[in-house]
Parts: sequence; structure tokens; C-alpha cells
Amino acid sequence: MPHEIKELNEECGLFGVWGDPNAVPITHLGLHTLQHRGQEGAGIVGLTRTGLRRHYGLGLLSEVFAKPADLAEIAGNAALGHVRYATAGGRLLENIQPLLFRFSTEAMALAHNGNLTNALTLRRQLEDTGAIFHTTSDTEVLMHLLRRSPQPGFIGQLKEALNQVHGGFAFLLLTETGLYAAVDPNGFRPLVLGRLPDGGVVICSETAALDAVGAKFVRDIEPGELVSVTAAGVHTEQYTTHTQLSVCAMEFIYFARPDSQIHGVNVHQARVAMGRRLAQEQPADADIVVGVPNSSLSAAMGYARESGIPYDLGLVKSQYVARTFIQPTQALRELAVKRKLSAVRAVVEGKSIALIDDSIVRGTTSMQLVKLLRAAGAKAVHLRIASPPLRFPCFYGIDIQSTHELMAANHSVAEMRAMLGVDSLGFLSTQALEESIDLDPSAPHHGLCTAYFTGDYPTPLYDYAATLHKELAQLTMNVSEVSA
Amino acid sequence: MPHEIKELNEECGLFGVWGDPNAVPITHLGLHTLQHRGQEGAGIVGLTRTGLRRHYGLGLLSEVFAKPADLAEIAGNAALGHVRYATAGGRLLENIQPLLFRFSTEAMALAHNGNLTNALTLRRQLEDTGAIFHTTSDTEVLMHLLRRSPQPGFIGQLKEALNQVHGGFAFLLLTETGLYAAVDPNGFRPLVLGRLPDGGVVICSETAALDAVGAKFVRDIEPGELVSVTAAGVHTEQYTTHTQLSVCAMEFIYFARPDSQIHGVNVHQARVAMGRRLAQEQPADADIVVGVPNSSLSAAMGYARESGIPYDLGLVKSQYVARTFIQPTQALRELAVKRKLSAVRAVVEGKSIALIDDSIVRGTTSMQLVKLLRAAGAKAVHLRIASPPLRFPCFYGIDIQSTHELMAANHSVAEMRAMLGVDSLGFLSTQALEESIDLDPSAPHHGLCTAYFTGDYPTPLYDYAATLHKELAQLTMNVSEVSA
Amino acid sequence: MPHEIKELNEECGLFGVWGDPNAVPITHLGLHTLQHRGQEGAGIVGLTRTGLRRHYGLGLLSEVFAKPADLAEIAGNAALGHVRYATAGGRLLENIQPLLFRFSTEAMALAHNGNLTNALTLRRQLEDTGAIFHTTSDTEVLMHLLRRSPQPGFIGQLKEALNQVHGGFAFLLLTETGLYAAVDPNGFRPLVLGRLPDGGVVICSETAALDAVGAKFVRDIEPGELVSVTAAGVHTEQYTTHTQLSVCAMEFIYFARPDSQIHGVNVHQARVAMGRRLAQEQPADADIVVGVPNSSLSAAMGYARESGIPYDLGLVKSQYVARTFIQPTQALRELAVKRKLSAVRAVVEGKSIALIDDSIVRGTTSMQLVKLLRAAGAKAVHLRIASPPLRFPCFYGIDIQSTHELMAANHSVAEMRAMLGVDSLGFLSTQALEESIDLDPSAPHHGLCTAYFTGDYPTPLYDYAATLHKELAQLTMNVSEVSA
Amino acid sequence: MPHEIKELNEECGLFGVWGDPNAVPITHLGLHTLQHRGQEGAGIVGLTRTGLRRHYGLGLLSEVFAKPADLAEIAGNAALGHVRYATAGGRLLENIQPLLFRFSTEAMALAHNGNLTNALTLRRQLEDTGAIFHTTSDTEVLMHLLRRSPQPGFIGQLKEALNQVHGGFAFLLLTETGLYAAVDPNGFRPLVLGRLPDGGVVICSETAALDAVGAKFVRDIEPGELVSVTAAGVHTEQYTTHTQLSVCAMEFIYFARPDSQIHGVNVHQARVAMGRRLAQEQPADADIVVGVPNSSLSAAMGYARESGIPYDLGLVKSQYVARTFIQPTQALRELAVKRKLSAVRAVVEGKSIALIDDSIVRGTTSMQLVKLLRAAGAKAVHLRIASPPLRFPCFYGIDIQSTHELMAANHSVAEMRAMLGVDSLGFLSTQALEESIDLDPSAPHHGLCTAYFTGDYPTPLYDYAATLHKELAQLTMNVSEVSA
Repeated sequence: MPHEIKELNEECGLFGVWGDPNAVPITHLGLHTLQHRGQEGAGIVGLTRTGLRRHYGLGLLSEVFAKPADLAEIAGNAALGHVRYATAGGRLLENIQPLLFRFSTEAMALAHNGNLTNALTLRRQLEDTGAIFHTTSDTEVLMHLLRRSPQPGFIGQLKEALNQVHGGFAFLLLTETGLYAAVDPNGFRPLVLGRLPDGGVVICSETAALDAVGAKFVRDIEPGELVSVTAAGVHTEQYTTHTQLSVCAMEFIYFARPDSQIHGVNVHQARVAMGRRLAQEQPADADIVVGVPNSSLSAAMGYARESGIPYDLGLVKSQYVARTFIQPTQALRELAVKRKLSAVRAVVEGKSIALIDDSIVRGTTSMQLVKLLRAAGAKAVHLRIASPPLRFPCFYGIDIQSTHELMAANHSVAEMRAMLGVDSLGFLSTQALEESIDLDPSAPHHGLCTAYFTGDYPTPLYDYAATLHKELAQLTMNVSEVSA
Repeated sequence: MPHEIKELNEECGLFGVWGDPNAVPITHLGLHTLQHRGQEGAGIVGLTRTGLRRHYGLGLLSEVFAKPADLAEIAGNAALGHVRYATAGGRLLENIQPLLFRFSTEAMALAHNGNLTNALTLRRQLEDTGAIFHTTSDTEVLMHLLRRSPQPGFIGQLKEALNQVHGGFAFLLLTETGLYAAVDPNGFRPLVLGRLPDGGVVICSETAALDAVGAKFVRDIEPGELVSVTAAGVHTEQYTTHTQLSVCAMEFIYFARPDSQIHGVNVHQARVAMGRRLAQEQPADADIVVGVPNSSLSAAMGYARESGIPYDLGLVKSQYVARTFIQPTQALRELAVKRKLSAVRAVVEGKSIALIDDSIVRGTTSMQLVKLLRAAGAKAVHLRIASPPLRFPCFYGIDIQSTHELMAANHSVAEMRAMLGVDSLGFLSTQALEESIDLDPSAPHHGLCTAYFTGDYPTPLYDYAATLHKELAQLTMNVSEVSA
Repeated sequence: MPHEIKELNEECGLFGVWGDPNAVPITHLGLHTLQHRGQEGAGIVGLTRTGLRRHYGLGLLSEVFAKPADLAEIAGNAALGHVRYATAGGRLLENIQPLLFRFSTEAMALAHNGNLTNALTLRRQLEDTGAIFHTTSDTEVLMHLLRRSPQPGFIGQLKEALNQVHGGFAFLLLTETGLYAAVDPNGFRPLVLGRLPDGGVVICSETAALDAVGAKFVRDIEPGELVSVTAAGVHTEQYTTHTQLSVCAMEFIYFARPDSQIHGVNVHQARVAMGRRLAQEQPADADIVVGVPNSSLSAAMGYARESGIPYDLGLVKSQYVARTFIQPTQALRELAVKRKLSAVRAVVEGKSIALIDDSIVRGTTSMQLVKLLRAAGAKAVHLRIASPPLRFPCFYGIDIQSTHELMAANHSVAEMRAMLGVDSLGFLSTQALEESIDLDPSAPHHGLCTAYFTGDYPTPLYDYAATLHKELAQLTMNVSEVSA
Repeated sequence: MPHEIKELNEECGLFGVWGDPNAVPITHLGLHTLQHRGQEGAGIVGLTRTGLRRHYGLGLLSEVFAKPADLAEIAGNAALGHVRYATAGGRLLENIQPLLFRFSTEAMALAHNGNLTNALTLRRQLEDTGAIFHTTSDTEVLMHLLRRSPQPGFIGQLKEALNQVHGGFAFLLLTETGLYAAVDPNGFRPLVLGRLPDGGVVICSETAALDAVGAKFVRDIEPGELVSVTAAGVHTEQYTTHTQLSVCAMEFIYFARPDSQIHGVNVHQARVAMGRRLAQEQPADADIVVGVPNSSLSAAMGYARESGIPYDLGLVKSQYVARTFIQPTQALRELAVKRKLSAVRAVVEGKSIALIDDSIVRGTTSMQLVKLLRAAGAKAVHLRIASPPLRFPCFYGIDIQSTHELMAANHSVAEMRAMLGVDSLGFLSTQALEESIDLDPSAPHHGLCTAYFTGDYPTPLYDYAATLHKELAQLTMNVSEVSA
């Protein structure tokens, strides 16, 4: 029953402000910029004159904060906000963050991005000594550890708790006296520090959110770092020195915004570089280059520049969210699925197309896209993927939970080509990916985690180790042949 | 008080189906594709077994049709749908279309895209003989004329009514026995005919909506044409032969979808051509070309191709709708306005930018964009507009209602350059615009209406003539100098 | 298809104010007091500085006016409000009143309580000469007649229109220059005039609403009267002198509030009198008297006083509205139906009960009540009805539309007794009913309409005459024996 | 800050079912009957095939359970429901019950009616050893004690926990293997056991809810009793034998339904008896007896019977909930307050009235009622209260939290008479109250808690003792004179 008491992965956006009278509207603006990191739920805790107060709910930010009073009621000089990704089965209102803890002597709000690899074990241990959990979220584990720590002082307790949890995490914690931020020892999840024009401090998931609120980027929060922002100013220390930078490569491949910088590297430009390397490694005999909007447009731009094949607008993405109703016929069902993307017949008709996508998970979306292009008259479709084949699950916070759902974990490239119905199929190599981003040339994997491609996990997997081992053993194919 | 009893302009999307058991879900799919043509309200009338039934409301399609029952309750073999643009002051529920008229002997649904130039005069004449209007929409005028026509037979009455209304219009009318479509004598508003796989007929505003529902494009509805779709099949006739093709140029410049074709010309490709001509007429000494997402990306692509300056992703558009709250400070207000677009600092920093936009109306958005790019470190901003200066109102269905609001009607290009804070400013010439689209080389303006640029209106202006004359006389500048 | 273009009956509440800066909140308060007269929909039109504005919707007043802005946006010195009863099949948003008519030169709001007997005929005649109807409500007919009247002047046109419509009606009409009220020549529906402390005028359906807003009762509006309230003061005239007071007896029996007075007679006291006469005509050998809450409590009080049998609380009514879900079993379905009323076992157990109800329509509610009392241990149930058997439909505004649904039109009292499962059953005689209320001893039926009991309709029935004649001929029983 | 982490009082309704496939719809029906016990929020936990699932929210039952799926999604063979009263400041979604606890090995739902007198002390002790509370409700304390109990076995742990909490409580606890019920050692809050037709067991707050679902009353749950309902049947034991029946007198005075029985005494009949005794102790020279609807109608009936003065309908209560908007003037504000009750002028005009109310807390409602009656022409108002003066707070679950808000704690009867503006004022004596209800003639206070009248609290007050002592010392009046 573990899956019932623990959500396996949490992709999220964090935004905290300390020391600005407009902390709550600033947080609201910032979360809007981070909405792509989570659409299931949203919440903001404000430090009001009568303590911490919370407004939260299921849905998009614009649904949760539907009227001015929703912000006004929690207004104050500090705030902590969160947007949350939907993992299957975890749509519990209780799980919407920030979690707000009310103690007799104080209150605390806690928000989290990532996934802990030993959360289940810790939870069971804590329950055995009387702890009561109210959510199925990892986030709550940290608070129990913090409250039970025998260390003297809040910072000591927090540091002890941070050393007990493993996996990928970025935490923001707001009390009535400070805003605290911590990143796991590998820095899987990004977190950045900025400064508002009037001196207030912002800590959030992406630099684009700093830009959106008019804050100046100061620096990335480093692996193993604990930052404390209080009346005494910004203080930093390492809660552990056993660190190794391994930023999630998926942040660069599709998750983060193109206008964000992660550890000094612009996401858009990294994608352009991936596209260039893809053109070198996997050339295509095509008339035009078409990118899948919007996440693959940068890579397609790079592919076009490097190959000299003109880029054209072969696919259009609707800017409106369609409500999906069950359609009465199979034909209508297929059409409904395609509502988000449509082909530009005048562009693709009679053309041989180099179609650039960022990645293939299950392969279903790619199949539909190929059908769409062929129906619009495409002569040939050469699918080029700006990342390596996804063959292993992620346990640090990206929603790829099992090898069962990964097309590349179960099929060779040749099989995939046939299944997808494309004329040719090519992936970027892991080495080229790592070199395109190149956070740190001297670090393993250039400072990236690329475990979903290589199976080379940068940490022990704790609660997940046994299941992964079993899954991999069941794979009937020789995974080593995938990269052929 | 005329503005209180008549909405001045209506940009809209139309979608009708005859002869398919899934007419209602097909119409819902089709309207989703046309949502860009109107976001204020939506409605669908279905021909159910117990007659015409309607579901409608204010808001986006996904808000109005929020649950499966909203479609199921109106299901039938024919349907008529509408999405409606918001003009200031006209947010009346009564105005949401299709209008549904229940008579003792039958019922009719009527939907309209465009603006009638003699609607006020007709309304007053009709009221003087006892007519009661329930909306402030032009649409209702046609029904009163139809019902009062002394002609024998429904088609005769409809033709007489169509000959009494002037201006820009595309009408769809659904009865229990047929679907009827008519376009004004100039074809200002597009309307196309398509065929579903099982033989059903679709008539809608854009070809992209045909693609979305799996219908095959048959042909454009021509100026002055009346199409009747009944159990007897598709019948066509001209209700007038005094026609002259003058398609609204704005459909090509920004309004229609890039994947639509209008009278044989693909919108995306027309925009690319405009961008090319703009690069010839208004070259820029720039490091990169940046288009304003999403409507100007095609023109920017053309500008880049022609000029040889590389295209890059300097601006990012949020895919989430932000709810706008009143912000407590001026700084936050400015930030909130910019939430839709953000600059990619890594791309624009230190660069000289050729910024391509589709048009300038009031100039406020352009000013913000320039500020945004400069704040992100742009060295220079050369603004290039892929259409001529907008100096005259539109009375055929685009929401530009007065010269007062048009920057180019009140300022020279030099003044505009200074006000916008750009290093240089250049517009496309009207001739180049017309040649880029080129619907019909032998027709006046190549088959386009470009009155907002030239003041050369292809029809008399009736109710609007006096006011326009007065406005133009008040303009302190010599408008002839604008094009300098 | 007549039932599709005309709602057959409309029970409603009206409330209008002229000449008070708080006209809209006063109207809101007043409508709350009249909510029992209609729960399907509500609307208020306010005379704002920019003309008449409307807020309206389906549901209870508290649902339609859900936030302060709903009132604030229509605030002004005059207002017209309406609450509307739900007749089957007529839940169209378009039908919610007041209807607001926007003409080129002025605007008018119109609200109506009652039912017109020649509305269909008029509608067809009007449509034949080009009139377009937007609702299926009678109300709109009056406006068409008014606008087409050749009489000089608004009052002349209104009077001509009032003389063309027949049946039961109370109209309130608000323009930018006045509030107008008219009652049909029989005064079927009540309408009263009051005066606010600061001089403003109120016209509304019941005196209880005057009390609720602090207005002083001035007088009832008389049959055939047209009252005009303008800047010149309150003016009255008879639009017809062919009048005959025939107030709907149902207003006294169950529809109006006990704290209202109609033509000088208090509703509660009239009901007590009915109960007393019922005790005389239909005595019962019972231990206690129990009234069906809440409408029959006054009659039960009269029955107890006259008979000397103690009144006791044998039935309790829930004050909460239950949402009715489909229940999985028959047993639960029956329980769910009973949620509104429950028996007090300690009171009824072992007792012989005189159960007093106001009337029997279909008989289903009575059957359930009897079961409820027997399940709670009642030894005997003697059902006494404080009105005569309902045998004929109403065409003047009460929702009893066909003899088919009337138990007493299809069964003798003996049959009804057996079907209802009571130990005895007795009705009040028509004569006793009329004498209990006694509006005018010298008028036919003492100034009441009691057609549903006697078939003696005080006016011709126009559109309904043929159907009624046919229905009555089909009744297999001899209706004359009912009164035995 | 204690008031921020603990809601002081909780009046609630409980309803649990074990062993019926329709447990959830039955619970929904039952809660509807108990809605008068709490309108702030509602929730139901169902035992589904995949474990305990919850649906809950703020508002009335009909708002929280708004569509069939809300029940269907939690359907199963057992259920636990709760409706919750609103205490000022406690409108937190987190506090809505039943609370659902998800442990690694099992899940539990807990619901509570009452108030614990040592909850704050327990909470602080628990927090000191690492416990994290997620609500500000007492209910959660029990679960922490249960989970930390070193006793072997669930029942042993539950019994230990029950012996640690003090005050007034009725608990229902649902696990995947049983439904458990416990009542405090004084039985302050009622809880009854019933049997469904098919053998299922119901435990709920009032017998009226048993009747509503067709369950047969079996017996009251006794003070200090713990009932376990499992697959093995219904098992009972005493978790403590130090018990003393002290049912909250307020349940009889106004809180419980008239059709409920508490420890064998019918609530309505107890109220009639109080009215009779009130007539003996406090006779009035009046023309009519008028009860304040609805809670005082039974007492008024008793007063009328005993005094021989006729009962009449002098006040009418609206059956519709009015949304309260801020009114623009003082006059309108006063009118708006009165919307719930209105006087029947025809009944009260010129009359001397014996007005019967159940109790006086702040006195504000009484003042308004008296004004209302005088405005309707009452000659004299003799206010008679069917309970003694309220002079002390309740700490066992009724929302009277401080002497500051109690009119009778701060003023003599003579002062109150003057402040209320009545011609005379009389209260029932405590002895007469106790004898009217008479649960157990041999027990102290006849088996009732009447501490709010006497200050004679049947238990130590723990967390509240100090504050109460201080408050009483501050009262400037000699409280002993109140009873004069």
C-alpha cells in the first residue's frame, strides 16, 4: 500500500519573499511565471499581522486565486507560494502546499519541490513512535524530523532533519521570524536567490520568476546549502559538505522556461546547442525543419541553423485549454486529442520533414503528430529527438516512475521507428547532451543527472532500490542495444 | 445614445453543421479551433428531436461548456455555434449568439460575424413600426427584416432581407429544415464550406476548423452568395450580383490562424511574404530578428530569411491566462501587465534587435515590449511593423472604432519613433502588403480591404459617414505626411 | 406546439419602488419577503444614472444576488423586482423577469404576475404581422401591443394594450420617467400600494413586503385600475370600468403569507376562520389536532379552538432545503421524500389524530403524511381539508393546469378516503370557504374566484375553452357527486 | 495565543453506520436531519473497497454534497458523517470533520461533538514530545493520545486515551474493521444507538435521525461507555465507572429537535412542560400568547394551555435564508436584521402579548422582537423566558464562552426589563426547569447539567478554571441577586 500513503514524484514551483510589504502580490506574480511547473494546485501563505495565514486550492493559480480578497486576506511582509504538478491519484486537497503547521508557540509553512528516496522508511519509523501524518506528501516528513530533533535551537534541528532526508529536494520554510531555503546535496532541483528593488529577498525555482517580479538575480542556491533570511539579513551555511552537483537534465530538456538560467546556463541556448549537436549526429534529408511547439522550438532552431535546412511553421499550438469530453465516435476521439496541435497544410504538403521533439516517453503523442503531418500531405517524416532514449525511472522529482511506461526501455530504436510510423528516427547521444549544457566540464556528467538515460544514479535509491532492480531484471530486451 | 443600443463591431467565429448525428460535438470541436476569434461568450444551438435547443453563456468555450450534459442536452443532426469577441460595454448575456427565435410555427437560430453599417437606421425604422429588439447586436436586425418581408417563401424573404443590410457580414441561419449561409457583397469576412467523411456539410469561418473536425475543404463562400443546405442537398445562388471582393486585410495580418487558407492563400505564408517585403523596404542594422509571439512569428521568419539576420527567441509568451488583480504599487502594475510576455536576457543582452510586430494600434503594448527588451540588456531596438500605419477606423467588423485611439492617425512616424523609444521605426507599404497577399491581382487592392491604412472604403458608410467625416476634420496633423 | 411557446401559468412576486435613493436594496429586501411566491428565478432592474440596468438569473434570490456588487451595479432611485415560480419545462433564462426592453429612444422593464387567457391568440396575430418574441412568457405580449398601439401618448397606448389582454394579471412597468401598475378587471392577483418613510412609493404583491421594508400600507390596487407614479406624483385612473372583484381564493388558502392583508382581510385570520368552519362542518373524534406545517397551522389552530380538541406538535418541518439525489433503494427513496416533514412519535403514538391540511391536489403528499403518522404509532388519522375538493384547472395564474392531475376531479370522496388510507376524510364547503374570507358579502362568491372548486369561471376562457370542455367531457365520473 | 490553536466550543451532529451497503446515502439522509446542530461544514467518510475515502467542505450539507458523484465516490458498507457549528474565527477547512488519518498500515476517521476542558494542556504536552497538529480542533488530541498509548491492542489504547481527555464529548471513530462510539463520563452530549431494517447499526446524535433513515431506536449510549461495532457484532464496556449523568440542559431548551428523545424524554414534551411551569411561576396579564418561532413554539403551547390565554400566530419566520448585504442606511440595516421574523399586525395590533422565548443570551434578538411587535401595534409585551437567566459560560460544547457576552451575568432582571423595553420580564426557575425535564429524580439536578444558570459545574474545569475565576471576580454586580 505504499503508493497510497506517498505520492511518488512531485514537480513543483516555489516562490518565497521576505521583507517587502507587497510580499503576497509579488508571490502571486512569481507563481504565475512558474505555473508551467505545476497545474494541479496552488497556495500562498502570507505573514500577516496576526500570524501566518493561508489561501490554497486545487486547480490553476487563476482558479485558486479568483478574487482580490484571496490575496488581500493574507497580505503581509513575507510570503511563501507553491504550484503543484498532478501525479495520478494524488489529487488530495490536503496535499496542496505550502503546508501550514500551527503549533502552540508558533506557526510554520513548508513547501517542497522534488522527491525523497527514503520518505517511506522515515514515515514508518516516525509513525511507530506516535507521529500522525495528514498528507501523503514527502514534505511533511521533514517537519516531523525537525520537531523531534533533540538538537538545541531551530537551525540545529533543521540541519539535523535535512541530513536525514535523501533524494532530490528544494525546500522553502517560512516562520514568523524568517524564510529558510535548502537544496539537496546534488542540487537536483534548481533554486535561486534574488533581490527586490527595495531590498526584499526572493528565493524561487527559476530566474524567469525573478525577472517577472522585477527582482535582480543574485545567485543559485548550492548543493547542501541552507540559507536563512531573517531580520539579521541573509545568512548561509552548508548543512552538509558531501555534495556533488547533478542538476536534473530534464530541467534543460523540457521542464524549465527558456528564459531561465540554471547555474549560469540559459535554457533556450542549451536547447539550441542540443539541436545543433543533433543535426551533426543525426542528419536528415529533409526540405524543412519543424519543431513541436512550444518546448522543442529552440532545439529545432538549432537543428535548422546547423543543417542549413530552413525552419518553417509546420505545426500550430492552440493557446486555449480545451475541456476534454468523451466523444461519441472513435474518429471524433482522435480529433479531440489533436486539438492542442494542428498541422499547417500549406507548409507541410509534399514536403520531407525533419520533425524535432524534445523527448519520447510513451510515444503516444509522437504517433499522433506523425499521423497529423501525413494527413496534411507530408511526403516523409524524419523524427529527431533532442535527448537520448528514456530508459530508466526518475526518483528525484520528475514524473517518470516506472520502466513499464517508457517506450525506449522496452523497444529498440528500430522497433520504435516502426511503431511510430516515421521514415527515420534518431536520438541525441548522452555525451552530446551533457556537452551541450556543460554546467561543469570537470564534474561527472558535466554536472548533470542523466540517470533516466544511463541508469547511473548519483545517489543510493533507498526505498526504490528493490523495485527498480526487479523491473530491470524483467526487461526482456538487452538494454545495451538501445543506443545502437 | 446610439452606442447603447448597438455594439459597434463584432469579431466572431462561426461554425455550422448539417446532416451528421454528431453535429453538436463536432461544432464544439470546431469552435475550439475558432476560439481566437472571440473569447467573450459562446453558444451552440442543436437541432434536437424536440426542436432547436440552445446552450450559451459568457466566457471561454471551456467555461460555457463545462460538463458533458451541456452538449448532450442539445444533441442532434444539425448545429450552429458561435464564439464572440468582447467590445467594451457590450457584455450582455442577451447578446451571446446564436440568437434563438421561437415562433408559434417554427424556430430559427441566427449567428453573425461582422458589422452592419446601416443597422441603426434600420433599427429605428423597424421600431417605428412596432418592432421590439431584445439585444444590442446587429444580428437581430436581419431577423426582423426577414419576418416582415412581403416576399413569398422563406428564401425570397431572406434574400430581400440580405439586400437591405449593408457592411461586412457572414451569417449562418439554422432552422428545423435547413442551414443557410450568406456573405456580404464584398466578402469582408471569410466563410468556407466543407464536407464531413459521412457526407455532412460544415460551414465555418476558417479552414483550420474544417481540418480540426476532419472535414474536407470544398470552397470559399463568395461575395453576395446565399448557400442553402437542406434535405435536398447544397444549393447556391447569388442574392446580389453587385459584388466586389474586398477581404479584410487584418484577417491576414493578425486575426486568422496561420494554418487557415482564405480564398486560396495560406495565412502563415502571406505573413512570411509580408516579412520578406518588410525586410526589403525597411532593412535594419541588427544582430538578431525577434518576433512578438505568437501572431508576428511568421512575419519575423520572413524578415530573417530575406535579411539573412538570424532569427532568435528573444521573447517568450506565457501559455497561462493570468487573472489581473489591481496591484498595490505602480511598479507591480507594470510588471503585471508584462506577465504575458517576457524577454530572454541571455538572447537579447548586448544585441541590436530587429523587433517585428504585426501592427500598432494604440502603441501601448509596443512601448512595454521595448522597455522589456531594454531592461534585459538590448543595445538597440529597431521596430519593424509588418503592415502600414493604421489611420482610419474599420466599420466592417474589426474593433478599431475611432481615429482617437489610433496612434498613427494622430502622430507622424518620427513622433511615433520618439514616443515608442525605439532606435528606428519602419512600416510596410500598403502596396507591398497587398502584393504579399495578392488574392486577385486584377481587383482593386488585389481583392483586399485596406481602408484602415488608406481611408479608401469599398462601400458607402451610412450610419458612420457623418461621424467619420467630423473626426477626420478634427485631426490636427496632415495625414498625408504619415506615410513619409 | 402551443405549450412550447407559452408557459401556462405564472405564480410570482412583484416589487417596485419609485423615488428613493435606496430603491435597489429596498427591492431586494422586499423580494426576500416574497420569495414564497416564486423560487425558480429572480431579477431586479434599477434606474441608474446611465439608464435601466438589470441583474437576473435562475434560482433563489440568495443565489442570483450572491455578492454586494450584484446590487451596487444597478443602484438608483427606482427599481423593479420579480421572483418567479417554476412551471414544468419553462426553466429558460430568457423568461426570467423583469424583462428589459431597450429601444433607440428609451428603455422599459416589465414584470408580470398571473396568466393571460388569450396570449396565444394575440401572439399568433402579432407574429403574423412581423413581431418577434424572445420569451415564452405572457409578459412580452403586453409590450408588443403597447408598442404597436396607434394611440397618442404612452398612457393611451398602455391602456389600449391592457384592454386587449384577458385573464389574471398584475403588471408593473418601469421606464426612465415612471413606475406603472395595472391589475386585471377581476383583481385575481393582489397588488398593494405603500409609502416609504422618506416619501418614496412602493407597489408590490403583498402587504408583508411593505412591512419588511418599513413602508406604510396605503391601499390595494383595484380591479381595472392603472396607477402611474412619476415626478408629478401618484396618479390613478380606470383603464376599464367593466370590473368584478374575484380575488383568487388560493391566495388565502395557501399561497399568500399569513402576515399579509388582501383587500382588508388578514390571511392568517381567514385561515383560522376556515379551520373553525371546518370543525363545524366536519367534526372528528380525535385526541389531538395536528396541522401540516407551515401553511396549515392557522387552519389547525381554528379547528382546535372550535372543536376544543387540543392542538399538538405532531409534525415537524425541516428548515433546511435538502438536495434530492436518486436513492439506491425503494426504502431510501421513500425516506428521502419524507425529509421535509417528520412525525413526533412521543406526541402521536397511540393517538387518534385530526390532521388538518390546506388542500389536496394530486394526493401524493397526503398519502406520505398518513404513512408517516401511522409509522409513528397513530391510532387513527382523520384528514380534514380546509378547502373544498379541487376539481377544475386554474387559468388565472395558479399552477393547476389540467383535470388529469386533480385527485378530486377523478375520484369521489369515498374513493379518495380509501386511496389516502385515512379513517375519515372531510372537506370544507365552498360556501363556508367564501364566508370565512368574505371580502364582499354582496359580490358573487363574496368577491372571490373559486372556479377550481365550482367550475364557475368569472371570465370567458378564450384559448383554453376548447381544451377544458374536452377534458371535462372525458371525466368518467359524475362530478356532481363529488360534493356529496 | 491559545484561542488561535483551539476552537473553544463545538456544537455538532454525528451520524455513523456499520454494515449496510447504502451506508453513505443513509448517512447523508441522517446528517440532513441533524443539520440544525451545525451549519458551518459537513463531511462524510465512507469505507470503500479501496479503504476510507472522504468528501467534505465548508457550508451546508446541500452545498458540500452538491452532486450525486460526491456520495457515489465514497460509497461502501460503513460511513461516518459530521455537521459542524460555526464558532467565530474557526472557519478553517482543515477543521471540517470527520478528520481522516492515513497511516502506513491503516486509516481512521474521527468525529467529535463537544468540548474538552484539558485539550490545551494535552496539546502542549504532546507538542513538547514532537507531535504535529494540523487542526485547531479538540478532536485531533484524542488521536495523538491513542497513537502514543503504550497499551497493547487498539481497544486498550482507545480506552487509555478516553481516560485522558476531560470535558464533554461524544466520539465516533471509523476504521476499516469497526465503528466505535464513546461518551464522556457525564453524558453531556447525547448519542443513541439504532438498528436498520437489514441489521446494520446506526449511532448518531439524536433519535430523530434514526427515524429519518428508518432505523429502530435501541438505546442511549451511557456515560463512560465505549461501544464497538465490528464483524463480531455490537460490544459494549465501560472505559470508566466514575460517571454521573449530567445531560446538557440546552439540548432540551433549544438545541435538539422537538421530535427527538433524550434518555427517554421527548424534547417537545419537555418544552411544553417548561411552558406550563413558566405560566405557573411567571403569569402574565395578556390577551394572547405568542412564541418565538420555531424553537419556542412548544413552550408557548405549554404556557397557553396552563394559563388559558389563547395561543396565536403573532410572529412569522421566513423559510428562506437571506444573504446579508451591508445596507446603505441604518433604517435598512435594522430592517435587514429582521428579515427572518415578522409580526402579524392583524394578530398583535392592540393586544397585550405574553411573548415566550427559550432563552436570552446577549439580548439583542429579544430587543428587536419587542420593537417589531410594538411597531405592529402591540399594546403591551410581557416577555417570559422558558429557562433561567444565563449567567455562566459553558465549557462542555455549547457556544457560550464568556460572562462578558451574557446579559444576565451583567445585569439584574429589573435592568434587563428596562433594556429590553418590555412591560414585564420573567424567567423559569432552575428547579422548575429540572423538574420539567426530570431525567432522573434521584440524581443531582435531576440528571442535567445546568451550570450556565447555577455555576455548579459537574466536573473540574482544567484549562478554563483560571479565566473563569477571574471573570467572575470582575463582575461588578452581586450575581446572587439575579435570581430575585
